[in-house]
Amino acid sequence: MAYRFVHRRTVAFSDTDLAGIVHFACFFPYMEDCEHAFYRSLQESVHKMNDGDGGWVGWPRIHASCDYRKPLRFEDELEIELMVVCVGNKTIEYRFEFRQLNDGSQVVAAVGKVVVACVRFHEGAMGAVDIPQAIREKIKQAPEDQLSTFADNPA
Amino acid sequence: MAYRFVHRRTVAFSDTDLAGIVHFACFFPYMEDCEHAFYRSLQESVHKMNDGDGGWVGWPRIHASCDYRKPLRFEDELEIELMVVCVGNKTIEYRFEFRQLNDGSQVVAAVGKVVVACVRFHEGAMGAVDIPQAIREKIKQAPEDQLSTFADNPA
Amino acid sequence: MAYRFVHRRTVAFSDTDLAGIVHFACFFPYMEDCEHAFYRSLQESVHKMNDGDGGWVGWPRIHASCDYRKPLRFEDELEIELMVVCVGNKTIEYRFEFRQLNDGSQVVAAVGKVVVACVRFHEGAMGAVDIPQAIREKIKQAPEDQLSTFADNPA
Amino acid sequence: MAYRFVHRRTVAFSDTDLAGIVHFACFFPYMEDCEHAFYRSLQESVHKMNDGDGGWVGWPRIHASCDYRKPLRFEDELEIELMVVCVGNKTIEYRFEFRQLNDGSQVVAAVGKVVVACVRFHEGAMGAVDIPQAIREKIKQAPEDQLSTFADNPA
Repeated sequence: MAYRFVHRRTVAFSDTDLAGIVHFACFFPYMEDCEHAFYRSLQESVHKMNDGDGGWVGWPRIHASCDYRKPLRFEDELEIELMVVCVGNKTIEYRFEFRQLNDGSQVVAAVGKVVVACVRFHEGAMGAVDIPQAIREKIKQAPEDQLSTFADNPA
Repeated sequence: MAYRFVHRRTVAFSDTDLAGIVHFACFFPYMEDCEHAFYRSLQESVHKMNDGDGGWVGWPRIHASCDYRKPLRFEDELEIELMVVCVGNKTIEYRFEFRQLNDGSQVVAAVGKVVVACVRFHEGAMGAVDIPQAIREKIKQAPEDQLSTFADNPA
Repeated sequence: MAYRFVHRRTVAFSDTDLAGIVHFACFFPYMEDCEHAFYRSLQESVHKMNDGDGGWVGWPRIHASCDYRKPLRFEDELEIELMVVCVGNKTIEYRFEFRQLNDGSQVVAAVGKVVVACVRFHEGAMGAVDIPQAIREKIKQAPEDQLSTFADNPA
Repeated sequence: MAYRFVHRRTVAFSDTDLAGIVHFACFFPYMEDCEHAFYRSLQESVHKMNDGDGGWVGWPRIHASCDYRKPLRFEDELEIELMVVCVGNKTIEYRFEFRQLNDGSQVVAAVGKVVVACVRFHEGAMGAVDIPQAIREKIKQAPEDQLSTFADNPA
């Protein structure tokens, strides 16, 4: 039962803006990519889980937030860590820590939070459904003691 | 003294993802574009306010969040409304309401919040500074009664 | 029968990169947005034309190119002009001119070319099909004399 | 003296559009990221090469193009190969091949071309300059026999 995952990436040129730093909106795909790599590490994909009835299950976001502490720059090496904070009937909450890697040390550059709902897409409409058992058997909420020291106080 | 602004836009194809809806990260540039249009409406630009000393003033984000209520789709017509929620010494907080326009009616599709800091960029570094007087003379916090009915409960 | 269209836009902050100019990849959604606004001006949408058989028609690109002549910057006002260069059985070729507006004068900042194919999406697959009659009745190739002076020599 | 480089990546969710495939504009940052990884492999960065005089050298694009042969989808594994096609006094031309990896086989999904100019950024302006010797000592044009079988016929 997994509840944390670390994803590495390098800041791309197209992620920067004219202030010379990573544009604030880019932190959200960074979180999403980490989440998807987490599921791939569990031999799952968040996308196109067939529901056996012509529809498929997806995970639209119902909340996303980020607190920015330190600017990131082109070619910075990052570690983005995901923690599963809550697994509900129809929703999952993740928290994220962005760490900038510098010659062996690490600095927390940002912390984020994402809440996703499990929905079924069918003939162009979507409706909330229970999280599939296949996912429920593979992930769980992080233990309290790990959460308490992780990505503190994201809004 | 301005404190609210409405910006219209049409959802672009490149803003959508394979679920057929606007990707959640796109709401953040939508908010930023609205903020910048607000300043242009006041004959200001958020960018490159020269500080008269070889540096310039910028507005990096220290917090951004969005609550998603209803998916948006390609070619949806939107009204994005900005409200100035707080003007501090070095920070400004905005709240946003995303309204989908449908044949005369409006549906709130999302609400968002952004907090920006005023910083001075100088020789590659940035440090927090007081909000320039030119800005302070043009914007103010929205009256309480207007805030209470606007974009309620964004995280 | 339409063959040209002008679309205005303002350069967004998130379109810039750390060199202080519009990132080269952004010119491609700019062209696409112009194309889609062109079709809306004809009371058509490039998306989700139902084919009456559970599938729908789309327009994936088979070629896209851009020649960059002059950098564009944040809050530049642009005119992007589309010209229909060729309407084939299953493909359409467009050419684009990006003009930066400066105090009444115009400078060509870039020229581009896009070739799209008409395809039918059905049950996850796509296959080339003839351009729908509804489109064919509304657009035509630009006259030779107009083409000769427009967006010369894009690759 | 290097002239080719292979970069691997996984298609991100945010790179897709409502047609369920990678948006055509995303192929351009894909090429750029490959180019930058190529320079990192040579212990160089394309960015902020200081010119020793308060300015710095950058590489804006003067041409970019892509021919699309096969759609790419979310979580596709890609190999993007760069070939140095021409090293001029002030410009470099690259060609790219996008290969989709499927259970051991490879399919060319797209081919691309990018031409960059070497410019010096100084006090907000940019002007073409000769390619720095440090770069010129590390890269060279691919041999003719390798070019002839690579990414044929990009526009």
